[in-house]
Amino acid sequence: MHEIQTVGVGMELERFFAAARLRASDYGEHYVALWDGLEQASTGGKRVRPALVLAAFTGLGGTDLALATPVAVSFELLHTAFVIHDDVIDQDLARRGVANIAGTFAERALAHGAGAQADAWAATAAILAGDLALSEAHRALAMLPVELKLRGRLLDLLDRAVFVSAAGELADVTNTASKHPLSVDLVVKTLEQKTAVYSFEAPLQAGAILAGASAESIGALGAFGRLIGVAFQLTDDILGVFGDPELTGKSVLTDLREGKQTALIAHAGTTGAWAGLAPFIGKADLTETEADAVRAGLRDCGALQAATALAADHADRAVAALDTPAIPVPLRDLLTTLAGTAVNRSR
Amino acid sequence: MHEIQTVGVGMELERFFAAARLRASDYGEHYVALWDGLEQASTGGKRVRPALVLAAFTGLGGTDLALATPVAVSFELLHTAFVIHDDVIDQDLARRGVANIAGTFAERALAHGAGAQADAWAATAAILAGDLALSEAHRALAMLPVELKLRGRLLDLLDRAVFVSAAGELADVTNTASKHPLSVDLVVKTLEQKTAVYSFEAPLQAGAILAGASAESIGALGAFGRLIGVAFQLTDDILGVFGDPELTGKSVLTDLREGKQTALIAHAGTTGAWAGLAPFIGKADLTETEADAVRAGLRDCGALQAATALAADHADRAVAALDTPAIPVPLRDLLTTLAGTAVNRSR
Repeated sequence: MHEIQTVGVGMELERFFAAARLRASDYGEHYVALWDGLEQASTGGKRVRPALVLAAFTGLGGTDLALATPVAVSFELLHTAFVIHDDVIDQDLARRGVANIAGTFAERALAHGAGAQADAWAATAAILAGDLALSEAHRALAMLPVELKLRGRLLDLLDRAVFVSAAGELADVTNTASKHPLSVDLVVKTLEQKTAVYSFEAPLQAGAILAGASAESIGALGAFGRLIGVAFQLTDDILGVFGDPELTGKSVLTDLREGKQTALIAHAGTTGAWAGLAPFIGKADLTETEADAVRAGLRDCGALQAATALAADHADRAVAALDTPAIPVPLRDLLTTLAGTAVNRSR
Repeated sequence: MHEIQTVGVGMELERFFAAARLRASDYGEHYVALWDGLEQASTGGKRVRPALVLAAFTGLGGTDLALATPVAVSFELLHTAFVIHDDVIDQDLARRGVANIAGTFAERALAHGAGAQADAWAATAAILAGDLALSEAHRALAMLPVELKLRGRLLDLLDRAVFVSAAGELADVTNTASKHPLSVDLVVKTLEQKTAVYSFEAPLQAGAILAGASAESIGALGAFGRLIGVAFQLTDDILGVFGDPELTGKSVLTDLREGKQTALIAHAGTTGAWAGLAPFIGKADLTETEADAVRAGLRDCGALQAATALAADHADRAVAALDTPAIPVPLRDLLTTLAGTAVNRSR
């Protein structure tokens, strides 16, 4: 996605946060700090979703970036909102080693002599920040100067993104009740719901709809988005156990200690190796040595290979979905490159 | 507000939830249960905000209820979202003695053998339900078939409602760091931000704007809304300590045990009685007998009288704000009656 410039999106976000901070200053230092934290949360990422909106838009003949930019901003802020609320649900105070909004406000409570309320400050700031980001995601689309029918289609996409992601997030949490590993199918379905729809399907389709693309183009991008989104997440889950923390910025113990329901675990659960692995999956104090043994077990039982093949298969099917005259060659080439980086990466 | 029919709003909400439940059924029983809980949360209240939208709309000459109903729905769902997220922040599992969404999902976790994850299920369901309600609040306005300028004004109101309420909610939590009672002014300001703007000012102004009312009408309704919203909340806080639980449905111990920063406490803090009262305000295991003594102390030091007078003064000033030819007499009469019930009530 290197070819896609998201500079305009960054400028638009900067403008939005500058205005919000000015308004917030009427409501005291804590509220300004909350907006600072929200801006930080929205600028840490790779801007994948805005890039997808703009790629589909320009790749399908769209030219008016003044229209596409707010749509790209909308999906970036939707992502920010989900990440922040996901961290509340997981009770995380940091993301990639840096304090998140909740973490910042927990420290803030201490600094203001409210140490006993640190958890309350953390949860409050994060819940509100997510609400504010979610609100602006909606507002950016709602204010588009386009006719009702087009606005309705874009709002329907956003609505689906929110609806399906919520279903996936809930499934992710309720799945933990399962005593046994989930099926691979259920793991994949949950990844699709929780992430692929809002992060890949919806941004691509929004760009296409805004460009006035055909139903066939929109359908092909949707299929590509769901498949490549799953491929991305499957790869993330593999890197979460087998990756290099120096490159990923993520501990390779966390997922194992949490007993995260990944395709690796799902596959291992179908093999004779499971009985030996099970005691260590979800073991909160798993040691480095034990983790090494789990990794060896996941390799030996074929789980690593199966999960890698599953990710590659999804990436291949994603690319195949683009094989229609409804997707112009430059856009197809760009997305095919993206599909490659979804699975072949170390960070 | 007995004269205002919100039947159409109820029907619209029923339609929305029926459609959502049908969609949710593709995502499993937990997601259907989440939507059931959300519908329940949105139907428990008195529909004050929709009534205010419709009162202002029809009172200022609006006739097309097909336009006003989605606006009324929007403010009802905004309220639902805030109530649900407020309960997460306060870690409440019940509202007026009935399990809320979080409480329902905590029970659900137990029933599904996930007792250890009961807190996670509760928080997840409530955060997501609030996000879904907030999203629909935005969507209801965004889909209005009105031109960009009018849509922009309505969306600005919603934006202000979200922005100011978040500031108020944050202030409410961070105020707890204060070792001493807050000033009465700060208590009033926080009530205005946290509740009056989104519950009274914005719904009234939205109805007026949609009816094509003059700037003077809109300004008068805004002033009325902020003042009467504060009067309502001041009265709620008085009933929270001096009310009849049989009528209010609320324990008269909760606010005292939590050390809630109310006008009662703020006033008491300025008197010589404070030293004697302070040990009992925020005492988590406050007994009925101790609460009786606190009540007597709040009476004797003049705090009850001062808070009651403050509420009455806000209601009077609210009514005075309507004394302009820009507010037609029937609307003025209706809102004057509302102002009376804001302060003279036992439930």
